[in-house]
Amino acid sequence: MPRNDALDSLLPFFSHHKKDQHQYEWVSDSFRQAVINGQLKPGYKLPSSRALSKQLGVARNSVVMAYEILQSEGIIETRHGAGSFVSAAAAIPPLLTAEMTLDQQYKRTPKLSPLGERVNKPVQINTTGTLLLPAQPALERFPLDDWHTALNRAVRQRTFLSDKHIQGPAILRQQLVDHLSMTRGVKATPEQILITSGSQQALSMVIDLLVGPKENVYVEDYGYQGVDGLLTAAGVRRVVLDTDDEGMVVDRGLNTLGAGLMIVTPSRSFPVGHTLSLARRLAMLNWADQTNSWILEDDYDSEFLYKGQPIASLQGMDKRERVIYTGTFSRTLFPGVRVGYLVLPECLVEIFSRYRALVDGGIGSLVPSAIGCFMQSGDYARHLRRMKKCYQARQQRLSEVVAAHLPELISLPHYGGMHQVFMLPEGGDDQAITTCANQQGLGIRALSSYSRKQNLQAQGIVIGFSGTSEEQLPSAIIRLREIIHQISD
Amino acid sequence: MPRNDALDSLLPFFSHHKKDQHQYEWVSDSFRQAVINGQLKPGYKLPSSRALSKQLGVARNSVVMAYEILQSEGIIETRHGAGSFVSAAAAIPPLLTAEMTLDQQYKRTPKLSPLGERVNKPVQINTTGTLLLPAQPALERFPLDDWHTALNRAVRQRTFLSDKHIQGPAILRQQLVDHLSMTRGVKATPEQILITSGSQQALSMVIDLLVGPKENVYVEDYGYQGVDGLLTAAGVRRVVLDTDDEGMVVDRGLNTLGAGLMIVTPSRSFPVGHTLSLARRLAMLNWADQTNSWILEDDYDSEFLYKGQPIASLQGMDKRERVIYTGTFSRTLFPGVRVGYLVLPECLVEIFSRYRALVDGGIGSLVPSAIGCFMQSGDYARHLRRMKKCYQARQQRLSEVVAAHLPELISLPHYGGMHQVFMLPEGGDDQAITTCANQQGLGIRALSSYSRKQNLQAQGIVIGFSGTSEEQLPSAIIRLREIIHQISD
Repeated sequence: MPRNDALDSLLPFFSHHKKDQHQYEWVSDSFRQAVINGQLKPGYKLPSSRALSKQLGVARNSVVMAYEILQSEGIIETRHGAGSFVSAAAAIPPLLTAEMTLDQQYKRTPKLSPLGERVNKPVQINTTGTLLLPAQPALERFPLDDWHTALNRAVRQRTFLSDKHIQGPAILRQQLVDHLSMTRGVKATPEQILITSGSQQALSMVIDLLVGPKENVYVEDYGYQGVDGLLTAAGVRRVVLDTDDEGMVVDRGLNTLGAGLMIVTPSRSFPVGHTLSLARRLAMLNWADQTNSWILEDDYDSEFLYKGQPIASLQGMDKRERVIYTGTFSRTLFPGVRVGYLVLPECLVEIFSRYRALVDGGIGSLVPSAIGCFMQSGDYARHLRRMKKCYQARQQRLSEVVAAHLPELISLPHYGGMHQVFMLPEGGDDQAITTCANQQGLGIRALSSYSRKQNLQAQGIVIGFSGTSEEQLPSAIIRLREIIHQISD
Repeated sequence: MPRNDALDSLLPFFSHHKKDQHQYEWVSDSFRQAVINGQLKPGYKLPSSRALSKQLGVARNSVVMAYEILQSEGIIETRHGAGSFVSAAAAIPPLLTAEMTLDQQYKRTPKLSPLGERVNKPVQINTTGTLLLPAQPALERFPLDDWHTALNRAVRQRTFLSDKHIQGPAILRQQLVDHLSMTRGVKATPEQILITSGSQQALSMVIDLLVGPKENVYVEDYGYQGVDGLLTAAGVRRVVLDTDDEGMVVDRGLNTLGAGLMIVTPSRSFPVGHTLSLARRLAMLNWADQTNSWILEDDYDSEFLYKGQPIASLQGMDKRERVIYTGTFSRTLFPGVRVGYLVLPECLVEIFSRYRALVDGGIGSLVPSAIGCFMQSGDYARHLRRMKKCYQARQQRLSEVVAAHLPELISLPHYGGMHQVFMLPEGGDDQAITTCANQQGLGIRALSSYSRKQNLQAQGIVIGFSGTSEEQLPSAIIRLREIIHQISD
């Protein structure tokens, strides 16, 4: 057989023949890549299928098929009687033939929208452990068998396959209405419930739809950082209201400032834990009514109250369709569940549904349906009762251990929830302590990091107790003591 | 026992005693409601706990407890020796005491943000059936047992409880990289994958982060309406490019207009079905490179190709980090799953992750983990192969049935997918036909409703075949024939 230079020069373009790859795919992929890389130029004449099949040792049919594919893709053109050529259309613009150098990649800043630029502000990412991390459920006590049963029930009902109700599956909305009415005095029908992908999405939709750029939003001093990130992204003006032991300070001055929305945690202010007084609640509702504004009531962990009786929700007191209520299953079930809910005034149901269809098309229905089954069977209420006892015992233990080992820390009053706030003695530096503690796997938080006024006077430590067993607590607190003493020295 | 007028006058405020309600709750709830309703004014003296317990027939302890609750809520105050009184703080502003009349409710237009106003534009909601609805998988053939197995595997792994990786569970991202590399020539690492709550969320994030208000976005004539809704909401300018049989028309004129983003369906243009030619692909990549712009490649149902070989993804040809690739499991698994994915250029991973944390905190990990298990076991690939055969047979049957019963309809070339487009003869009115057909439970779509230029010349019908069995197809098409003939008369 005479030597064929043209064929030899092609061989480098044939990459390793992967298993699972048909012969025709190997041939067509290799040619395509060589053309796209600019190694084979327009007008290049391909060898005949017979010659190539011999050279490569593949069936001739495979080469014919590969050429057909390349032709259908416009990469080669076949002129009758003359053979196959790389197509003129495959003239690769010179820029595309070169890989970007690392240098070029670094020089090219991604082009972002104004919102993208606002989101892109570098934030300090807190490396954390989980040992004393706030808001962690006691996962080792999660009733996995009951959950599995609920999940199987949802699978058997088969509605998860096609159920795309934008507000979430009916079974969960009905169960939530009953549960929230009984435990929180929330007044709603299932038609007012929107199941969300976590309460963060609830917040996000409320801010997007109800307040525009440069409008004012009232928030409490101290609060959840996810709210601030969203307000920054939306270009909204944050007006921080002080908190005292009756919760957020709401007075007549509010009306003169004007804001489209107030975001508040009435049950227990986050993370400090004040309960909003009745007088403040009424003033708040009155403000919203008179100014045609909205109140977002974030009822983030009101399920866990260990002393006294829960104060009913603000939503239940509202007769003027001003309050939007939100809550989450991330704390009562497990953090990976990402299911929350909104209770909407009737007049907002349609616009929120429409927006939800745009932002993500609604939630997958299997897990929410399973939660509905879990509630319907009574397993959820039982689980909440058990967790309430479990967390109460853990909070009690935390108080004792801190009193024994870190008596210089002063606990803020605590009646419930999943974390406890301790004030540092004068001169304490909560940021330094938490940075160091988190390097050692304690997931504690600095109180000052929650302050929206960057009030550096108030130095404290936020300790999660719900996810930490009573056996683990002493050693964790002793570790914290070492860190605190080391930093104070 | 002497009659007690004060007590009698209280009785109407005691609502029906619900089962599950403790006596103290009944008492405190009833008082609270009466105060909030303005029926009991500040200064009103409550009966002694002894008198009230006798009158109501409840334990005295329950009344004492109820009074304590009301006191802790600031609703009543107890003056030592003088008794309990409705608190001055419970002075309800007059506006709040009244329920809104229906009239007031209608007069009050919800206050929305500018984005809210843009989303709030009334849209015509198409009542639909599902018989010939596009994009419906053959749910009766869904391998429920295999899915259940995958789900059980994910449950047993327990990672779903706490896995909150913002990009989605690692197992699914790895499986996707392998699958997309093999079937679509997508080049990526698992670190570039972002699991989304459907491909609609992928679109939404891309538009939000990459194009600002009043910037231009290039879209194909004919396209997915979810894109248009998002562009409208974002206040972005839509620049519609024509499509011909090589797909979207991309020429040198593009550079002069300037746009931050191009949204395109290269594999099969939606809904018409053209495959974007190589020359256009190269021109598109070159445009993006030269102008530092983005291309969103929506590969919506490329899994189902019945003739020829799939053309590799645009993403696989891109060496300049310009292409963002998106796909969904809603069509390959089931519509209720709401899981999709983005393949991001490395330079966008961080900003998208950060934004995702804001908009919803990421996806719940149970279902995506189960999809990962489903793919890992080979069940997904098997399912795709079966569905490809099933849909190919259904498309074949649809073509035959239409040829037999509605020969005046001309099919556009069709090589795959889940729907087929038929052109109406001159004078046909696709909107009238689909409106009527959908009232009768056929979920067909008017071709003109997808036209972004509102090009009323092109009248056609988009018929989904994938969700309709071969036995159901003839009667559905005969029903459609009656409607078409009725309207033409």
